[in-house]
Amino acid sequence: MTHILKGMRVVEGSAFVAVPLAGMTLAQMGADVIRFDRIEGGLDAGRWPLAPSGQSLFWAGLNKGKRSVAVDMKSDEGRELVTRIVTAPGEDAGLFLTNLRVRGWMDYDTLRTFREDLITVTLTGDRHGRPQVDYTVNPALGVPDITGPEGHADPVANAIPAWDLIAGNLCVTSLLAAERHRLRHGKGQEVELALKDVAAAAMGHLGMIGDAVLGDAARGKSGNALYGAYGQDFLCADGERVMVIGLTGRQWTGLVKVTETADAMAHLESRTGASLRDEGTRWRLRHEITEILKPWFALRAITEIAPLFDKMGLTWSRFRTLKRAVAEDADLSPANPMFREIDQPGAGRFPVPGAPMTFSSGPRKAPQPAPALGAHTEEVLGDVVGMTDTEIAQLFDKGIVQSPDFVRPRTAA
Amino acid sequence: MTHILKGMRVVEGSAFVAVPLAGMTLAQMGADVIRFDRIEGGLDAGRWPLAPSGQSLFWAGLNKGKRSVAVDMKSDEGRELVTRIVTAPGEDAGLFLTNLRVRGWMDYDTLRTFREDLITVTLTGDRHGRPQVDYTVNPALGVPDITGPEGHADPVANAIPAWDLIAGNLCVTSLLAAERHRLRHGKGQEVELALKDVAAAAMGHLGMIGDAVLGDAARGKSGNALYGAYGQDFLCADGERVMVIGLTGRQWTGLVKVTETADAMAHLESRTGASLRDEGTRWRLRHEITEILKPWFALRAITEIAPLFDKMGLTWSRFRTLKRAVAEDADLSPANPMFREIDQPGAGRFPVPGAPMTFSSGPRKAPQPAPALGAHTEEVLGDVVGMTDTEIAQLFDKGIVQSPDFVRPRTAA
Repeated sequence: MTHILKGMRVVEGSAFVAVPLAGMTLAQMGADVIRFDRIEGGLDAGRWPLAPSGQSLFWAGLNKGKRSVAVDMKSDEGRELVTRIVTAPGEDAGLFLTNLRVRGWMDYDTLRTFREDLITVTLTGDRHGRPQVDYTVNPALGVPDITGPEGHADPVANAIPAWDLIAGNLCVTSLLAAERHRLRHGKGQEVELALKDVAAAAMGHLGMIGDAVLGDAARGKSGNALYGAYGQDFLCADGERVMVIGLTGRQWTGLVKVTETADAMAHLESRTGASLRDEGTRWRLRHEITEILKPWFALRAITEIAPLFDKMGLTWSRFRTLKRAVAEDADLSPANPMFREIDQPGAGRFPVPGAPMTFSSGPRKAPQPAPALGAHTEEVLGDVVGMTDTEIAQLFDKGIVQSPDFVRPRTAA
Repeated sequence: MTHILKGMRVVEGSAFVAVPLAGMTLAQMGADVIRFDRIEGGLDAGRWPLAPSGQSLFWAGLNKGKRSVAVDMKSDEGRELVTRIVTAPGEDAGLFLTNLRVRGWMDYDTLRTFREDLITVTLTGDRHGRPQVDYTVNPALGVPDITGPEGHADPVANAIPAWDLIAGNLCVTSLLAAERHRLRHGKGQEVELALKDVAAAAMGHLGMIGDAVLGDAARGKSGNALYGAYGQDFLCADGERVMVIGLTGRQWTGLVKVTETADAMAHLESRTGASLRDEGTRWRLRHEITEILKPWFALRAITEIAPLFDKMGLTWSRFRTLKRAVAEDADLSPANPMFREIDQPGAGRFPVPGAPMTFSSGPRKAPQPAPALGAHTEEVLGDVVGMTDTEIAQLFDKGIVQSPDFVRPRTAA
């Protein structure tokens, strides 16, 4: 009964969301994941949100359960060291994730001269090698133009870096697929993908590129409505807001039944000559449907609505700020076995998620705190690179590597 | 030189975004993916967007390159047939993805009696087994409360089903990790995950749960600004809109340099006593920074801005509707090797994406059209289940299975 990727060793040279998430996903499935950073920390070392202490909750969130090595990569010795960590022997090692785009010594072609069966997964901005982030890819693909209230003139950005999160997951997929291939054929692999391509592919998969090409008009904003069928948010008598879905026939029938609006819906059908059993009709008549349903919600508190909806098996939820959700929703607390309340040194104590997946072959891997920058430098130089204590001490003396003992004065400043 | 997952066979019982995307991702890496549906089509058979012909571009987008089998699962013979397809022999088969939540005959525990090393990956709504979709998970976690213009009172929904897309990718990860385990230990596996957990984990990984617990105030809306550092949209002289990023020190310095605003920024620093070299200061002073930068953009057309930004290596993009992006941006056309223009029978001709990843061990797999419902029924009953022509003909005669010849009159209606 061990964790599903136990024994795998992955090295990560990364910053920000996607590649750190990829490494952490593997770590939370049991892999030994080593992230290396420059001695002053990566570009994401201070990324918001911050804890009241000033420590990055973002960094802590995306690097949980990894080993951290801090190396001066401007020095030849530092570069050699990173090369040795990435290409160190081990049957389930030689796996490298990166979005650093360092030319020359950190190229796949250079690194593989030290380990022929090396697998690297490299994420870039766009396919031309230009820098792109979630915030730039999103407007380039028109997402802000379809986000926000109907009739709102301006584009509205996503608050969640969705493309980064998806790209990180595709890095994991790429690595596992390439490693499967290596297990069978003994061959290394270079995998490349670009953030903009990840987003463009998703838009295409959702049918939106076909719609843009074949449709007459550009898709507009539709507020909080479920696109293409029925789903809407409603204000309840107590000021609470709920989202309710009428996407499938069963959901729609249940919604009409529980709100006792069958007569009004039938009247809408006879007035328009359209059948609400068709999801496209529900979409086209969504405003009329919403007007029919609104009074039912406006007359009832959420405490009355919730049990009725649950009894009917409706697909619905309430709106809550995350702060309120964390206080009220047991699914965001250690009552959910995915979460564990841990003490993130220097930041504080809060519920931290592990991997969302459970594997029947082993227990859930409890989430671990993120390491302090360089916390495992000495350990990794020993157990991965195979250096002697004397060799390691020399590297510390020369300032080629650091560990928290050296870093501590800086972070306290 | 073959595709990375060539030889793997996966069976999918699914609807909507996540699990169909998971199956398609595997298909686009070379796996043989068989999706089974009831004879009238799955719950997503008519999901929007639709082609002018009325055919679902959504379904076409999420089922590309799969084999389709149409079976009457209300009949005992139909259920037996699906069981035989899922549990059919084959070293790289016995892999099942589902979000159908069918109790009894389609359970892991029932199916594994027919193939002990079966791997199933099951996606549910929430961890309690309640139905949830992207549109309900999102408000439950507070995302609409932080989306939209600063000061806007109402919640704003995502236009993209980000959590579904991420969940689908995690289904792929789960399947590959479980199959890796099976290759080594010969053991089957049941993997379970819930959409709400996928979203909650991501919010935690981004540091947002820690922020909600440790911070004094709930995070608010911040319009199109990059959270926690600097990044903003600007209107240019010609009415075009651009997004420009000043997240890293290099991006910020480049932005100040190209817009020749160093003096004004220095004045802002001396007036506030804060250093703009700190990303958090750039965030807190974002409105002041934006006022300084605005006139520069307002005086220049995008044709003037673009080459300056590219020369400086800035991270930026323009805003475009998807319709315009598809017409203007070569990255969304077959000039990008990820795309191929294909004819989706019954829908039309448009650029279709393959997998965003390239693997050095083989060529890109060109994207394939989605199958017609049941198009491969006969073929799968033969080559996967191993039935004789006579047995297959009997199933067609009894109406237990269908293929497009039978379906055609329905879709033309």
